[in-house]
Amino acid sequence: MTKPLRDCRITVIGLGLMGASLCMDLSREGLCREVRGVARRTRTVLDAFFSGAVDLATNDLHTGVMGADVVILATPVWSIIDMLEEIGPYLWPGALIMDMGSTKAEICAAMARLPSGIQPIGGHPMTGKETSGFDAAEPGLYQGATWVLSPLERTAPPALELAHELVLAVGARPVVLEPTRHDRLVAAISHLPYLLASALVDAVSAVGAADPLVWDLAAGGFRDTSRVAASDTRMFLDILATNRDAILEQVDRFAAELGELRGLLRDEDEAGLRAKLEQSERARQLWERRIDNCE
Amino acid sequence: MTKPLRDCRITVIGLGLMGASLCMDLSREGLCREVRGVARRTRTVLDAFFSGAVDLATNDLHTGVMGADVVILATPVWSIIDMLEEIGPYLWPGALIMDMGSTKAEICAAMARLPSGIQPIGGHPMTGKETSGFDAAEPGLYQGATWVLSPLERTAPPALELAHELVLAVGARPVVLEPTRHDRLVAAISHLPYLLASALVDAVSAVGAADPLVWDLAAGGFRDTSRVAASDTRMFLDILATNRDAILEQVDRFAAELGELRGLLRDEDEAGLRAKLEQSERARQLWERRIDNCE
Repeated sequence: MTKPLRDCRITVIGLGLMGASLCMDLSREGLCREVRGVARRTRTVLDAFFSGAVDLATNDLHTGVMGADVVILATPVWSIIDMLEEIGPYLWPGALIMDMGSTKAEICAAMARLPSGIQPIGGHPMTGKETSGFDAAEPGLYQGATWVLSPLERTAPPALELAHELVLAVGARPVVLEPTRHDRLVAAISHLPYLLASALVDAVSAVGAADPLVWDLAAGGFRDTSRVAASDTRMFLDILATNRDAILEQVDRFAAELGELRGLLRDEDEAGLRAKLEQSERARQLWERRIDNCE
Repeated sequence: MTKPLRDCRITVIGLGLMGASLCMDLSREGLCREVRGVARRTRTVLDAFFSGAVDLATNDLHTGVMGADVVILATPVWSIIDMLEEIGPYLWPGALIMDMGSTKAEICAAMARLPSGIQPIGGHPMTGKETSGFDAAEPGLYQGATWVLSPLERTAPPALELAHELVLAVGARPVVLEPTRHDRLVAAISHLPYLLASALVDAVSAVGAADPLVWDLAAGGFRDTSRVAASDTRMFLDILATNRDAILEQVDRFAAELGELRGLLRDEDEAGLRAKLEQSERARQLWERRIDNCE
């Protein structure tokens, strides 16, 4: 029933950074039979077509998914959930439907309501940039990235195999993960950093309101630590709304750690500070080495 | 009394990332008459000499500074303060003494105790990397960086002019700033981000203790936001100890901002969250564009 990737018609809905980069990889490498793109704006439809990222582009959702063997939803989370409801009736039985959203529990719950016969798999490639939109897309974005796959109970093994094949074909590493476990982990390594970056920009802005020279002094440390605050707010609002409890838990965990550092500093406890800071220095260096070895 | 830069013998004490990179620029461009380096470890002394970064290297502090027109202290903050006391008697009257330490108030206070006739100026180039040591040094590190200069009341104008000439010669932008104002501003854009990065690594480590897979999912957002946690702990312990009050103030400011975001998230106040997150998205993007235009 499930075809190999090279025989599949693949429709990607949402041609922003993530969706368009995937189209570019699929088209450039000739990995499948046809790549179709669906975008809201006519400008993006034309850009995608004339850049060669897709064989066919449209802003008509129903036409876009018709006859597709694989449909990949690459929009913000709430929009993915809305579209799952809308496109169900237009899909072949046996079609694989995946998403690229940043939270998985709510999306997988919506996928469970798809017409039977359709093969749903939640997905989340662990990569990105703080820039967004079609213009930010690039081939090779997924090279070396971890790509989470969350099959449902109803998902047939051949559908999961096809999803694996697609992920591997663009150079990513598939990791099968249960949706709530995914959401708990990304709350710590993605959603918390976003809130920290945003609050840091706010804190520096408050200093800058009294002394604007602060912006001239800001260099690499501020640049790196605050980078993700420049991410698309709309995308993150959906993430925050669909992973609220896990994120609140991580914010509290972080606040406790920062409070501990603050207490050691206030008490001039240099030995305590040294022990704690050296521990995170080592943990961060270990992680960097491990990631470098994987890439 | 003060010579032009090209006629100066310059001694750099401390051949880590900052000091050695400066030596490389001075030597490579032939910007001065002689470049001398002082390092604690014989290995670094030999590396600096045979790499051509300096004309002469030594681990004897007194020999190193003898006859120098300009002495630049490029070690952690407490060590700078200790050395100021030690080298005073070995310097020519009229010699310019600068430092590259990350906090300025305590260092400038120690500089005020130097023998009269010596010309002290606090300095801080606003650049760096999370790697440290001679092996991390590179020519061109200061290109485009802001370089804070804090002259003392006793500092003669020609000495400040020479410091300007040196900073401009390596491609940096001199900014004259009063020490406590410098310390207040860098608490916000450098010392606070370091503590946040460190506390973030701690929070993720706590998650990782229960579910080590979190480290495999960590990608760009975590990488950027936590990068400075890998910085040299010893250097930062000195910074924290010599800028405690300003840093505590910034930590509290940050905690209030994060607490506000947390409250909006808990209360599901999407409009409030949107307004606050969009504000920092814009502020961060504006800063990035401004910096890009300067470089």
